[in-house]
Amino acid sequence: MVFTPAVAEQRFVLDHVVGVGELGAEPDIVDAVLEGVGQFAEGEWAPLKRVGDVVGAKWSEDGVRMPDGFPQAYRAYVEGGWGTIGVPEAYGGQGLPFAIQTAVLETLGAANMAFALCPTLTVGAVEALQHHGTPEQQRLYLPKLATGEWTGTMNLTEPQAGSDVGALRAKAEPRDDGTWSITGTKIYISFGDHDMADNIVHLVLARTPDAPAGTKGISLFLVPKYRLNEDGTAGAFNDVRVVSIEHKMGLHASPTCVLSFGDHGDCVGELIGPVGGGMRAMFTMMNNARLNVGLQGVQVAEAATQKAVSYALERVQGARNGAQARIVEHPDVRRMLLRMKAQTQAARALVYYAAGMVDRAYKGDAEAKGRLELLTPLAKAHATDIGCEVSSIGIQVHGGMGYVEETGAAQFFRDARITPIYEGTNGIQAADLVGRKLGLDNGGVFARLVEDMRRDAEAEDLKALVETCDTVGRRLATAEADDKLAASYPFLTMLSTAVCGWLMERQLRAAGDDAFGRTKTAVARFYLDQVVPEALGLRAAATQSAAPLYAIEPEAFAA
Amino acid sequence: MVFTPAVAEQRFVLDHVVGVGELGAEPDIVDAVLEGVGQFAEGEWAPLKRVGDVVGAKWSEDGVRMPDGFPQAYRAYVEGGWGTIGVPEAYGGQGLPFAIQTAVLETLGAANMAFALCPTLTVGAVEALQHHGTPEQQRLYLPKLATGEWTGTMNLTEPQAGSDVGALRAKAEPRDDGTWSITGTKIYISFGDHDMADNIVHLVLARTPDAPAGTKGISLFLVPKYRLNEDGTAGAFNDVRVVSIEHKMGLHASPTCVLSFGDHGDCVGELIGPVGGGMRAMFTMMNNARLNVGLQGVQVAEAATQKAVSYALERVQGARNGAQARIVEHPDVRRMLLRMKAQTQAARALVYYAAGMVDRAYKGDAEAKGRLELLTPLAKAHATDIGCEVSSIGIQVHGGMGYVEETGAAQFFRDARITPIYEGTNGIQAADLVGRKLGLDNGGVFARLVEDMRRDAEAEDLKALVETCDTVGRRLATAEADDKLAASYPFLTMLSTAVCGWLMERQLRAAGDDAFGRTKTAVARFYLDQVVPEALGLRAAATQSAAPLYAIEPEAFAA
Repeated sequence: MVFTPAVAEQRFVLDHVVGVGELGAEPDIVDAVLEGVGQFAEGEWAPLKRVGDVVGAKWSEDGVRMPDGFPQAYRAYVEGGWGTIGVPEAYGGQGLPFAIQTAVLETLGAANMAFALCPTLTVGAVEALQHHGTPEQQRLYLPKLATGEWTGTMNLTEPQAGSDVGALRAKAEPRDDGTWSITGTKIYISFGDHDMADNIVHLVLARTPDAPAGTKGISLFLVPKYRLNEDGTAGAFNDVRVVSIEHKMGLHASPTCVLSFGDHGDCVGELIGPVGGGMRAMFTMMNNARLNVGLQGVQVAEAATQKAVSYALERVQGARNGAQARIVEHPDVRRMLLRMKAQTQAARALVYYAAGMVDRAYKGDAEAKGRLELLTPLAKAHATDIGCEVSSIGIQVHGGMGYVEETGAAQFFRDARITPIYEGTNGIQAADLVGRKLGLDNGGVFARLVEDMRRDAEAEDLKALVETCDTVGRRLATAEADDKLAASYPFLTMLSTAVCGWLMERQLRAAGDDAFGRTKTAVARFYLDQVVPEALGLRAAATQSAAPLYAIEPEAFAA
Repeated sequence: MVFTPAVAEQRFVLDHVVGVGELGAEPDIVDAVLEGVGQFAEGEWAPLKRVGDVVGAKWSEDGVRMPDGFPQAYRAYVEGGWGTIGVPEAYGGQGLPFAIQTAVLETLGAANMAFALCPTLTVGAVEALQHHGTPEQQRLYLPKLATGEWTGTMNLTEPQAGSDVGALRAKAEPRDDGTWSITGTKIYISFGDHDMADNIVHLVLARTPDAPAGTKGISLFLVPKYRLNEDGTAGAFNDVRVVSIEHKMGLHASPTCVLSFGDHGDCVGELIGPVGGGMRAMFTMMNNARLNVGLQGVQVAEAATQKAVSYALERVQGARNGAQARIVEHPDVRRMLLRMKAQTQAARALVYYAAGMVDRAYKGDAEAKGRLELLTPLAKAHATDIGCEVSSIGIQVHGGMGYVEETGAAQFFRDARITPIYEGTNGIQAADLVGRKLGLDNGGVFARLVEDMRRDAEAEDLKALVETCDTVGRRLATAEADDKLAASYPFLTMLSTAVCGWLMERQLRAAGDDAFGRTKTAVARFYLDQVVPEALGLRAAATQSAAPLYAIEPEAFAA
């Protein structure tokens, strides 16, 4: 099946959910970008999806080798300038809104999710350097990262330090020239090595000598794979070795690397930001990275939906009104397809809306900044949950064919399953929501979101859900820590559904009477009529205390 | 991780949910069987789970070759007599209740789900021959199928005939000696070929000459891979060729075959039951097979839960009360583990309860027969949905490790995903529920189930759910066909949850104050407090008409 970029839908959401007109992007340019990247992704990246899965990235002593076709298609991406969309003009970028960059990444990832993770990480490295790098670091690194000639990585996790980043042990020791000597092992480094770019810029969290324990002792370092020559080009090897790559269930074209820094005592890094400021700098990168992982949920949901619709429009099975029928004619198949579309559009609305807040926050809008912080865990967790759900329904629509790898539906299902895990598990997102975000501005950020939703909501179930979220959210804000955490995940799902319902209803109101508008109306109605009420069923779980979870001893779980 | 058979839990459910004492099984024998098969499965089959996944069954010109270790472990199964549990003594079996056989198959499949599908299919063939075979067919085939020396298959699906079995084209033409010449191609035949047994007995649906279109023209044929010698041993090849096997997302140790019958005009079959009676005979087999696929949901949920619990008890990450903690100590991890246990136990209660109805129905209990028919689609669909959900949570508990294949959590997730598809997709089950089962005995079968639940229910949410199911079910029973189908899946989930809640509350009441009882109490409470209320959120979807699903044209789904 050919992938079709969702240009009309993206444009509609940018207009009516994001309000892209207020962000300073020219409509003509927006159209040109959406259509241009759509053509590019459809023509160059989508055809590599299957080889990426079947062959995958391969490790060797000399480094990671990407499947045939990937290096060329990556060069085409660099040459097309698709990496530069959101980068400020000062660093060679096009300075378009983050929300537009979000749409670009959606299209690239819907065409080829594993591949698109590479530029996604590079974008994160650009942001970290843009906000925390020295002018010299920015001058040397940002233009190459902007184009994608060089790619970026994030290095947090170590075997004993996963969700608990503070437990990391990688070391940075000062050298005479002001640089740092880096040693340690990092795991789960996406695109930690590959053969598509001239250099790889690793952003590495490590401890300086005598640093305090926990997150306060962590600093961020810029560690290129190849040190820079005088002229700024990639030069000598910097003693960063890729030890192995993981054998994963999916996302095979994204090499997940174990990196060893400084095996020969010759790995040089530069400090980014102040000593001990690593977590803060990394969070700059991580917050937008969380939105971008939420966006992966949109990517895989969109791709899985397109594939399922295409199959349902072709596959003839069973009869309706006495005649053989395509399965799209059967009620339960329609229900599945509408659910796929509704959830996909809801996830897109949520992530794009948050992306628009990134732009507003950059412009100094404090309210937008708060709302972005509140919505980031929702966008990351709920959109990735949707990606998993939708790709699973996609298999179901295909029946037995869905379970056969050649069909491609299974790849979406396998690829999607990492997204609720990495970049902070969805459980960590839920903890962030109840532990930090609900309390922002003494609960004011949450209260103002609720107020906006309350003002707009028209559907009865949506109104009820908003009120339930308000009651439960205010209660959770002051609950004991364990009680917050016990209810965190159901509450995150409830609140996310309320926000999605609010944004879907907004689109319903904006929908015209053309073909696009009629489909949008049917899909939004489905969301409001079927998905929103389900979330009301989570109220019980979202108001439970932690006590029932501790009614038995740990070992009793094994009984 | 070592697999631990859930003997105490199985025994408890057999006692308190199934009422196995009323089925004529001696308690000592039940214990001996549960413990015996547990030891066998843990020692012989569980260790082959990973090689089954990584190496998988392999096709060659000479037939399908199972991974190393499987043929020996299968022989040990035959020698242990584990295939004979539920087979009547007249055919060399032990004549124990179907419910006990269910427990045996659960243990085998929790140890190695792909492997256990082979005896599961053989059990189905035994049932078909037991009820529809001639005495001669029974004499020749049943003893060997009972022990598992020979294995059985079901041959329904063809490329153009999936959910719509009536569309099949395989042909059976009469031969002079009263046998039939079989030709045609069947797909998705689990264990359609392998190298573990001396013969394979295919039960094949095919059309006789001049048969009417649709399901009425279908007859069932017994087609052995090797024809029988005079002495009843396997003899000459019967022209059944395995053309290929599918490359599936999971269940790799279960070869999914394309079988070609009669390529050389030399495939001989015997009619089972009357001409045109194929669907009826196949349904005998299929109904219990549906329970057994529901049981696969229990198998994979149990195995995934054990693995996740084991990991959570070992993995140290993050802190509680200032000290490093195992992740089992964190509230959201506890929530995930309790949910896994609650859903697994609920699925087991549902499937075992239905299995007990098989035994009661065999004894002539008409009420049990009706209840079994009503519950079969629930057991198949809901238990397999649970298998998928629980195996997905299992990955989440493992974090990044869950996505790495070596851990084994991903295998459960991949293996589980076929179960909502085969043996009648879960959508077909939902259609069966609203289209045929709700109306049994003019709605009396459903009404009496509701009455039983209403009489017993104590928890407020469970009471509310039972009343909702009653209202919605009665409404659906008389609704237009499309409206029934539109609401079928949400209603199936609601009703299944009500039945599970009813059976979990029954266990709660029966739970003692020992360690087992305390865990059972915590798990059942979680189900009643968190899972049951969620199902109330499905009411809106279960009362929607079909109209919103047809608000747009088929092609609009692609827009």
